[in-house]
Amino acid sequence: MAYNLLAGKKGIITGALDEKSIAWQVALKAKAEGATFVLSNAPVALRMGKINELAQHCQTEVIGADATSVEDIENLYKKSMEILGGKIDFVLHSIGMSPNVRKGKEYGDLNYEWFMKTLDISAISFHKMLQVAEKLDALNEYASVVALSYIAAQRTFPDYSDMAQAKALLESIARSYGERYGRLKKVRINTISQSPTKTTAGTGVSGFDAFFEYANMMSPLGNAPAEACADYCITLFSDLTRYVTMQNLYHDGGFSSMGISPEIVGKMQP
Amino acid sequence: MAYNLLAGKKGIITGALDEKSIAWQVALKAKAEGATFVLSNAPVALRMGKINELAQHCQTEVIGADATSVEDIENLYKKSMEILGGKIDFVLHSIGMSPNVRKGKEYGDLNYEWFMKTLDISAISFHKMLQVAEKLDALNEYASVVALSYIAAQRTFPDYSDMAQAKALLESIARSYGERYGRLKKVRINTISQSPTKTTAGTGVSGFDAFFEYANMMSPLGNAPAEACADYCITLFSDLTRYVTMQNLYHDGGFSSMGISPEIVGKMQP
Amino acid sequence: MAYNLLAGKKGIITGALDEKSIAWQVALKAKAEGATFVLSNAPVALRMGKINELAQHCQTEVIGADATSVEDIENLYKKSMEILGGKIDFVLHSIGMSPNVRKGKEYGDLNYEWFMKTLDISAISFHKMLQVAEKLDALNEYASVVALSYIAAQRTFPDYSDMAQAKALLESIARSYGERYGRLKKVRINTISQSPTKTTAGTGVSGFDAFFEYANMMSPLGNAPAEACADYCITLFSDLTRYVTMQNLYHDGGFSSMGISPEIVGKMQP
Amino acid sequence: MAYNLLAGKKGIITGALDEKSIAWQVALKAKAEGATFVLSNAPVALRMGKINELAQHCQTEVIGADATSVEDIENLYKKSMEILGGKIDFVLHSIGMSPNVRKGKEYGDLNYEWFMKTLDISAISFHKMLQVAEKLDALNEYASVVALSYIAAQRTFPDYSDMAQAKALLESIARSYGERYGRLKKVRINTISQSPTKTTAGTGVSGFDAFFEYANMMSPLGNAPAEACADYCITLFSDLTRYVTMQNLYHDGGFSSMGISPEIVGKMQP
Repeated sequence: MAYNLLAGKKGIITGALDEKSIAWQVALKAKAEGATFVLSNAPVALRMGKINELAQHCQTEVIGADATSVEDIENLYKKSMEILGGKIDFVLHSIGMSPNVRKGKEYGDLNYEWFMKTLDISAISFHKMLQVAEKLDALNEYASVVALSYIAAQRTFPDYSDMAQAKALLESIARSYGERYGRLKKVRINTISQSPTKTTAGTGVSGFDAFFEYANMMSPLGNAPAEACADYCITLFSDLTRYVTMQNLYHDGGFSSMGISPEIVGKMQP
Repeated sequence: MAYNLLAGKKGIITGALDEKSIAWQVALKAKAEGATFVLSNAPVALRMGKINELAQHCQTEVIGADATSVEDIENLYKKSMEILGGKIDFVLHSIGMSPNVRKGKEYGDLNYEWFMKTLDISAISFHKMLQVAEKLDALNEYASVVALSYIAAQRTFPDYSDMAQAKALLESIARSYGERYGRLKKVRINTISQSPTKTTAGTGVSGFDAFFEYANMMSPLGNAPAEACADYCITLFSDLTRYVTMQNLYHDGGFSSMGISPEIVGKMQP
Repeated sequence: MAYNLLAGKKGIITGALDEKSIAWQVALKAKAEGATFVLSNAPVALRMGKINELAQHCQTEVIGADATSVEDIENLYKKSMEILGGKIDFVLHSIGMSPNVRKGKEYGDLNYEWFMKTLDISAISFHKMLQVAEKLDALNEYASVVALSYIAAQRTFPDYSDMAQAKALLESIARSYGERYGRLKKVRINTISQSPTKTTAGTGVSGFDAFFEYANMMSPLGNAPAEACADYCITLFSDLTRYVTMQNLYHDGGFSSMGISPEIVGKMQP
Repeated sequence: MAYNLLAGKKGIITGALDEKSIAWQVALKAKAEGATFVLSNAPVALRMGKINELAQHCQTEVIGADATSVEDIENLYKKSMEILGGKIDFVLHSIGMSPNVRKGKEYGDLNYEWFMKTLDISAISFHKMLQVAEKLDALNEYASVVALSYIAAQRTFPDYSDMAQAKALLESIARSYGERYGRLKKVRINTISQSPTKTTAGTGVSGFDAFFEYANMMSPLGNAPAEACADYCITLFSDLTRYVTMQNLYHDGGFSSMGISPEIVGKMQP
């Protein structure tokens, strides 16, 4: 089903790696809803991923950009506006990586250079994407910017390690820049706090399966799949949500509002 | 602009009184998006309001129902299913009234019978609409139920008096029944916490104008108008938000995430 | 260990039934910290409980009061001030009961008269205790009022049923009346959201044991015992917390900030 | 008034600059309550401030430490344990600085090296203090660690700029490390979200006065003074709050739970 919700809208979608990526699904839906957009990912991800297939399917181009580099982001906006023929109406930030998690450093033995890298890649990149956009005046009035987050920003999931801090930082940036860009240009900025998702990135976290299953048993509707998250992004990019800003929006089958579920009670019985 | 987002969906919309009502705007948008629905309001409101005009415009019927009466609610669902030819896909609860506020009782001098009435009309009615729906099996799988709330549920606005309690109760019911109905039938239940809105009901609260202006100055996008709230409701009734449940969603131009705005700082200068 | 933290302070402590009651522990600690106070409970609880033992130990009196009766509450304050020789410095509200839970009514089959009773006993009684206090001018400046709550006010625990609504209402009253009484008389009003506690009342809830164990495994410090909760109440009654008001304070070993614990991950493994 | 609440406890207090500092007040109260402790601040602050007066008054020593340096923090713990003759029972983290704010960079023109510095000094330093403590096993069981935060972590105060992100990060670290250290050693970790305070550091923020006044008019009890914040810290360092962990605790005269106050309504009238 498609509704033409994004007819005429121009966007930038970061973070598509393969079909399991939420960003990949967002691209498919955005295309179906009538948007034009460019894809972007880190140079290294471009080499590994199958993003060119996606670009072909969406009749668009891929622009490599290191999300920690202001120059790369400038280039991304400039080229995007050139390719799309105008200013941008929506941006998806789906970027995150923790060297500490990757390399199995415990939370009590963090490498601080890597911690900084986690924050730079996963959160400060969001500020950079907004500040560069503002400086280039690259966003249309009422543009919509969405970043993907996780409930580890509010509650502790030990294996998520310093990514919890990155997500807290990301959501904080959405609130701060949302005020500024809202006041200046009516741009709205939100984060979606998504269920654990079996993406290629997500499944790298140790204990992911137990924790995916736990979240699933805890959520009355079950864990939200990537496709549904893409649907939700579409509503936020559309003109139907123009007064929603500076929010962290749970897309999680109810998980965030649960204390205990009957299934978990069952699991606790001896 | 319409997108056919609710094509084929059947609904019940309560609380439309006149053009300023959010519910009235929801009805207009739902109609434009392809839904069929019935309208409902309290018998007294039916007499005062112009709801029949709306019904005519939407080619539908009005079913009077006292939201505190289980029998009336049973009748509402039964007749609705008859008229619409099947089970219900979406419900809007837009019902609230405080005799204490109406009659100018201070928060330190509440009449407790009236307090109970405030809760019964404005919040317990929501549980009744859900419990009756469940007993009659009146909702389709993945139906979406939305109730209108206000940030007084979280923060104190003295003139809002015992309506603050009613909204806290309403949101709590959404979380509790959302768990139950989600688990049983995939039904999702949310509340929208809307900007202060110049409805006929809203403007009854004393000091409303000062406080409307304050909220407007505090919100980077300004107060959200009723039409925009209706748009947002439509996204929640659509199939694009199937995993959003048990949430209180701020539709407020950013107000809820603000500490102070430059405009308010200006206002504070001597 | 005692510190004389409440030397010279006069209080009212409701809800002590037996040694397992949090209120009972609060009374013991308050006595040790130098306070004088009266005890109160519902007439029926007075007959069942051993509260007279406690009164003897604390060298005080018991005043029966139905917490839903404004007259009884008036009598409670008047007699308390007479017995204690002056206005009140601290109040503990530890009152809650749900006929629906007691009688095993499911959340989809609530009896609405009983629902009202749940709210009246467990939450509106708190407003009554505050409104009567204000009308009688029964509280000293900087008095501290605490009510016991539970995280079901924020998240769904299905077996907790309509008590979730009662706790949401209770916390909302603390915020609303906290604004009023703070402004008028510097009185502070807070709720403590306590770990599940093996009180005589608490253990009546079905599935309590599984859920106690779950909370214990989820909390880094384990579930907080009743004695520790009493210690925490003492800090809130003391002069060291004079600017804390309108808050819901988690006393729960960390539960409220947890997403998943290593122990629960272990439990999820097949 | 003193109660001997910290008799026999050993602590580290960072961030005392002059009498207006919250940390300075905490030191005075901790001394009065029977604690022994060392003071610490950045080398540059040691030169500017009058911390030696405080040390003399408290009969203790000052250990210079750059809070971004793991080596300095190691030295701080080792020397502290030597001076105090044993492991540490309480730590106050009161460290924050934003070069972007200092140098008047707007939020839409942040210098990213400085942003990183803001985070490193104001938040990551907290992780370093915890990780070093764990590695050196420098904290006793049930030790209490408190960091000072501000509500800009949750809501936007435009002039607070990237310090908002620093506070969000700080509170996130408290939740994550609180889980770990609680599980391992029963150590509790919390942040206090304090009213705006007229410290030498605080008043550097532009528009501070308007915003101090606004907060004061919004808070039913008025802004909490530094001395009262020190009292609250004492309760958190004491044995009476052993099950409070991973919390952000508002010490703000009610500000955080306010929507609008009668005084602000008055201010809005034309």
